[in-house]
Amino acid sequence: MSTGPVRIGLLGCGNVGAAFVSLVRERAAVIESRYGIDLQITRVAVHNLSRERPVEFDDGVLTHDASDVVNDPNIDVVVETIGGIEPARGLILDAIAGGKPVVTANKELLANLGSELYSAADDKGVDLLFEAAVAGGIPFMRPLRESLAGEDIARVMGIVNGTTNYVLCRMAEEHISFGEALAEAQELGYAERDPTADIEGFDAGAKAAIIASVAFGVDVVAGDVYREGISDITPADLAFAERLGYVVKLLAIIERFRELDGPEIAVRVHPAMVPAGHPLAAVRDSFNAIFVEGEAVGDLMFYGRGAGGDPTASAVLGDVIDAALNTGQGRGATMGKREVATLRPIDALQSEYYINLEVADRAGALARVAGVFGDHGVSIRSMEQEGLGEEARLVFITHEAVERDVQATLQTLRDLEVVDRVRSVLRVVASADG
Amino acid sequence: MSTGPVRIGLLGCGNVGAAFVSLVRERAAVIESRYGIDLQITRVAVHNLSRERPVEFDDGVLTHDASDVVNDPNIDVVVETIGGIEPARGLILDAIAGGKPVVTANKELLANLGSELYSAADDKGVDLLFEAAVAGGIPFMRPLRESLAGEDIARVMGIVNGTTNYVLCRMAEEHISFGEALAEAQELGYAERDPTADIEGFDAGAKAAIIASVAFGVDVVAGDVYREGISDITPADLAFAERLGYVVKLLAIIERFRELDGPEIAVRVHPAMVPAGHPLAAVRDSFNAIFVEGEAVGDLMFYGRGAGGDPTASAVLGDVIDAALNTGQGRGATMGKREVATLRPIDALQSEYYINLEVADRAGALARVAGVFGDHGVSIRSMEQEGLGEEARLVFITHEAVERDVQATLQTLRDLEVVDRVRSVLRVVASADG
Repeated sequence: MSTGPVRIGLLGCGNVGAAFVSLVRERAAVIESRYGIDLQITRVAVHNLSRERPVEFDDGVLTHDASDVVNDPNIDVVVETIGGIEPARGLILDAIAGGKPVVTANKELLANLGSELYSAADDKGVDLLFEAAVAGGIPFMRPLRESLAGEDIARVMGIVNGTTNYVLCRMAEEHISFGEALAEAQELGYAERDPTADIEGFDAGAKAAIIASVAFGVDVVAGDVYREGISDITPADLAFAERLGYVVKLLAIIERFRELDGPEIAVRVHPAMVPAGHPLAAVRDSFNAIFVEGEAVGDLMFYGRGAGGDPTASAVLGDVIDAALNTGQGRGATMGKREVATLRPIDALQSEYYINLEVADRAGALARVAGVFGDHGVSIRSMEQEGLGEEARLVFITHEAVERDVQATLQTLRDLEVVDRVRSVLRVVASADG
Repeated sequence: MSTGPVRIGLLGCGNVGAAFVSLVRERAAVIESRYGIDLQITRVAVHNLSRERPVEFDDGVLTHDASDVVNDPNIDVVVETIGGIEPARGLILDAIAGGKPVVTANKELLANLGSELYSAADDKGVDLLFEAAVAGGIPFMRPLRESLAGEDIARVMGIVNGTTNYVLCRMAEEHISFGEALAEAQELGYAERDPTADIEGFDAGAKAAIIASVAFGVDVVAGDVYREGISDITPADLAFAERLGYVVKLLAIIERFRELDGPEIAVRVHPAMVPAGHPLAAVRDSFNAIFVEGEAVGDLMFYGRGAGGDPTASAVLGDVIDAALNTGQGRGATMGKREVATLRPIDALQSEYYINLEVADRAGALARVAGVFGDHGVSIRSMEQEGLGEEARLVFITHEAVERDVQATLQTLRDLEVVDRVRSVLRVVASADG
């Protein structure tokens, strides 16, 4: 099978890059004996040549000039682990233009300019592989692109951010506040010093855009994704959720609706109440999982480590082996033909809702509040009263309702004298089949 | 991308075959517009031409002569859904010899004669794809073959038989006997009239052999797999398990051990106690799931429908699209170089054990029984006494021990006067990371 070494040009040698170098060195002999592929990392472009790294290189491997690597005729596969938009975008386009397959872990780039890159790769007929960009080490993008290529997918729901899952789990299990759980996550290195990208759902939103593009063959970018974070979630919400048989997760939800005028796509990230018996409810700590609902295949879930140097490097290596097996055979993995997505706005979302109200006077309040729900056509499935006097609360779960009607309901409730405060509103995921 | 239709020759048109035909017809337009592949089922070989089928064919598509289909120069891809060893084996080999990619759902054939087929396909450089043979619709074989090609896999544990999972779930949740749960499963069509293949672990064993072959690049056949079924499990075992924080699952366990003389592989199927917090514990009803422990990637799990016409057809279609994309490019998916497996016998297994003894006289019995454990070097992690007089029981969980020592312990215990009966013995799975 072998026709000489497969020479890898690596762009960036940070956490993921260095883990990838170590993994290749560790596994090279096995990969060669099993697949006849002799992987060699022959060029590595880094920003700072003199920085200390956990991996060492022979003289002449490290270079400051990344464009030198992607244009090197002696490089067979380019691996991009720089992250961010530029210079990554330009370097990947140069590599593709030169007929080199590219493996990237760059979520931000794909979520914003994926369409340009996918088209360039398809036009040139080279592989652009990005397993590591979504859900780290979990083999998900490739099964979605290949195994499920013929499947009619209705919905994908993912826990695709480990930081927020860790924070929500700790809050629920230790009955601590969001701030305490976040501080703990930061201490353990699960959360960044500036946690905004994770906590406010930007990271999950970028992944949702990439998943939507692949699952539905449309061009969706990060900016298209409706997004809410978890910083308003309270221990009280988690306690209510538990009592009602739910757990709260930050979900990336990607759905397709068949309409007479053609398909509509909804892509959103927000905390949601997930039934305790749903497979996603059992995903704990900083693990990720992606739940797929297909017409023929039924319910699927992919579970594993969504981040970290080693898991991400494992995903990169899987892609590199695939690209290496394809090299010289003129075959590129295809994203297929993509269409412009008709996005369904969040206003039109249909869901069940959890609504937690602080009311002044429980006895009088219920009739008034129930009346407001009724006026807006939002049907109540269950209600619980809790506390007395100034501490009184009404907790509702609605039947399936339209977001705009629920928002109108909340608006009216806020103006109601008997309602002190709308404490929280969470969308509720219906139970899984089976 | 398109260069004319991809003509599929289908062997067998039973449950899976007919579901595949329906699915192709349903999805053909989307697959063509997205991937430029025009899938057409042009020949279908069936045993009985006049049987009623849920799908209809144009004149001249159905034939009684399967060898006519695999040798037809106008067929581009062969899909085998006949099952069993012959004639499937001969037909697949003929198709491969003729340079045709083959997609098969044939677990029995691959588990017994996979090596011959893999070698034939690799020698000829054509695809032999078999996602549907293990865990039905779950994309697992392809991720294992491709995404995890570079991963150092330590262990795979799978719930790969839906019937037994359903029976065990019902027993645990409804507190009913094995016989009652089985009868219910048969009524619902989850279990065959003769349930032996499922209940006694033969089905799971065949899948374990295929997984071992792919995960570790070795030739393992069904007969190599140590196997115990679930028919001896009692509601009392499940109740004890629950109280101790476990659930009982029938697991296929595939492990590799690094020894000085080279790797040893252990492949076995038996009921086991799984910690309630382990992702496999949450797999309910007739669902399947496969848990993978990799050196770099960490813990992964793949979850979904392990059987059924539609999920299996979905896996077949994914493979057909892959084969069609590869067609004409001279590329075959490779199984890589395989080695002869050194199998570790069950005697040498190391595990924790759950041991449930009926004893005549609780007070006197414990010291005697504990002494026997100690004599055989089996260390007790926890013990519970239950009941009185003739109903007295001692329930032990051991620390990690060697199977042969545990068997010797049990042998001695059976001969002990104070022990009325060894009621049950179950291996215990250690908690997952994270």
